Amino acid sequence: MAKKKTKKSTAKKTTADASAKTVIKKRSKRGSNGVKTTAKLEGLAESVVENAFGRREPAIDIPIRALSNVSFNPKTRYIEMGDRCQQRSLFNYGQAKRFMQTLLVASKCKELVDADKTASIRQIYYLAKHTIKGTKEKTFDSQDESDPVIEDLEVALEALREELHVFAGSKGALIGELTFVDSGDTIDATKLGSGGYAIPSIVEPNVIQFKKCKAKYVLHVEKDTVWRRFVEDRFWEKHRCILTHGGGQPSRGVRRMLYRLHDELKLPVVCLLDNDPWGYYIYSVIKQGSINLAFESSRMAVPNARFIGVSSYDYERFDLTDDVKIELDANDIKRAKQILSYPWFAGKKPWEKEIRQMIKNGFKMEVEALCSKNLTFVTDEYTPQRLKQPKSWLD
Amino acid sequence: MAKKKTKKSTAKKTTADASAKTVIKKRSKRGSNGVKTTAKLEGLAESVVENAFGRREPAIDIPIRALSNVSFNPKTRYIEMGDRCQQRSLFNYGQAKRFMQTLLVASKCKELVDADKTASIRQIYYLAKHTIKGTKEKTFDSQDESDPVIEDLEVALEALREELHVFAGSKGALIGELTFVDSGDTIDATKLGSGGYAIPSIVEPNVIQFKKCKAKYVLHVEKDTVWRRFVEDRFWEKHRCILTHGGGQPSRGVRRMLYRLHDELKLPVVCLLDNDPWGYYIYSVIKQGSINLAFESSRMAVPNARFIGVSSYDYERFDLTDDVKIELDANDIKRAKQILSYPWFAGKKPWEKEIRQMIKNGFKMEVEALCSKNLTFVTDEYTPQRLKQPKSWLD
Repeated sequence: MAKKKTKKSTAKKTTADASAKTVIKKRSKRGSNGVKTTAKLEGLAESVVENAFGRREPAIDIPIRALSNVSFNPKTRYIEMGDRCQQRSLFNYGQAKRFMQTLLVASKCKELVDADKTASIRQIYYLAKHTIKGTKEKTFDSQDESDPVIEDLEVALEALREELHVFAGSKGALIGELTFVDSGDTIDATKLGSGGYAIPSIVEPNVIQFKKCKAKYVLHVEKDTVWRRFVEDRFWEKHRCILTHGGGQPSRGVRRMLYRLHDELKLPVVCLLDNDPWGYYIYSVIKQGSINLAFESSRMAVPNARFIGVSSYDYERFDLTDDVKIELDANDIKRAKQILSYPWFAGKKPWEKEIRQMIKNGFKMEVEALCSKNLTFVTDEYTPQRLKQPKSWLD
Repeated sequence: MAKKKTKKSTAKKTTADASAKTVIKKRSKRGSNGVKTTAKLEGLAESVVENAFGRREPAIDIPIRALSNVSFNPKTRYIEMGDRCQQRSLFNYGQAKRFMQTLLVASKCKELVDADKTASIRQIYYLAKHTIKGTKEKTFDSQDESDPVIEDLEVALEALREELHVFAGSKGALIGELTFVDSGDTIDATKLGSGGYAIPSIVEPNVIQFKKCKAKYVLHVEKDTVWRRFVEDRFWEKHRCILTHGGGQPSRGVRRMLYRLHDELKLPVVCLLDNDPWGYYIYSVIKQGSINLAFESSRMAVPNARFIGVSSYDYERFDLTDDVKIELDANDIKRAKQILSYPWFAGKKPWEKEIRQMIKNGFKMEVEALCSKNLTFVTDEYTPQRLKQPKSWLD
């Protein structure tokens, strides 16, 4: 990636895309990607060395992570990063420090992969931070400097952060008709009591392998408290599914888990989220990926995911009372209109209708509000009924 | 509780304390407290009915939950609530709505206990919210009104929220040398891979029963990311312990779990937290309870917990470099001095030294900073060494 000084490296990117695809294929088969990541990290280091010995300026091309270099691909149906790169070179006064930081973090990732250990993004900061000999200059002044470098590396090497053995905080849980192996332990997710399995940050195939799956689909709910309602009512058992939640906006670990359940086990992913702009946005991230992490979309987004509720039409559909209503404020309306203008919502009539209806209603509704009917209405009636009406799901 | 109109109901409280103690004893033996909670809820309702038929004003005494009614008991070594009560009566214009709300939430809790179901505090709000017939008046206008009523009930009935079948959001996880039953499923916490067991909000004995424990102690760490370091390095296996984290300030579920592990399995609880005022405060809550939830202390606080690090003296003790330092800001110093003045810290020379040393250092340190030595320094050297030096632990 680092050999040419072109601003547009389309040709190279295409090859890289192709090889990334190969990687994905191989990963699915082999269950581990450690060797490949090592090769990428070594390739980065070698290109720098080669340039140095060839008396060329050492430099790295980093694809640009900004709205301007991101677009929705209607064919793949997720948000993709464009081809524009920015260069980071050693002899540029404004880039030298970031160049050094990039190689420093890369070398720490190499050590992690070699030792088969993982580190948090905070730990990476501390691992890579030191005072440069003979000066008072620190390699990193704060984690705000190391976090973007990790993302730089992900995108430059086309390796997920998790493949670089780096993790962030985790949230979310899973329970249901799935048996899998995590770090050598076989876990039967039908036998996890009320607590469930805490989805870790790294769920790559070298850590987690799926073994047996009786589930027909994955039901993803927004919040822990809703998830517990479904767990307590043993919904996963009655309806033969896997229940996940993301504690609000799902972490990368949760998104990657949904992706793998869908991709490898061919399970449909259906989402039950709040009827508000935040719920729409969570759905959008699960389905199309996010703008910030567009370079991960191909390995995290689930374009086939479906939104089963709560819908702006459920108030009438289920004869709900005024007690479920939460008035929209100005910010909700602004946010709803923004979402409406996203290209991946804009083209879709049912979504336009859905969002406009919310604005017209003048109120939003939470999944938890459904219990104003009765406590188990959501598990006994609402969700089973919604599941039987795929035509009214939102795509 | 509701029969007399005394502001100070000391005598009654003493009896109630005694009966609460009986409850705890029984709970530990029977593993369930459902019947007792039902009796308490029915008692509340009956007292209202009795007053009404006796032509007395229906009223409920609610112990006051405020700093003014809270004190540190040096004998029990936790924060306790005092005896002062406030009355809530039906014919007082300013109290009538809250009186109605209290009985309404109580009746919803009764339904939950009877049906052996649980609900989140949000779900309680929706369950209890409705429009009063013939008016536009709602029983609750927001969850801000129902949450304090749940706490009122807890304290008035001396029943944990969890015993009223109400839960809040959960966080925290557990892994290690423990086998337990959760909702009928036997869970071997040595076989939970990298994810671990997500500690639910309700960990009462009717849900979770401990079966086999090979652990010698519980190591509680502050954050998920630190916990994963310990899990990856299989610290729990090498050192025969149970590893827990609370995702920052531990939830009630995590605190109650620590209490039960300590109380029922007689496991020492040692804490590894950041060397900053926030870390001190987390420790303080685990050990002495919190001011807000002082009425829970007797069933959540672990006065025998110990703080093994990170200590203000570790910088020299472990020959750390400047890279671990995070400069204290004005707020840190203010907060440290506040904590120093808490009666449960104030009397203790080693804690005074510890906190003063942090202020003198002028910097704070995170557990994760220890990896500036090397990634596994915290699991290979720091913690094992600290565990061998109980004399330097903080009480």
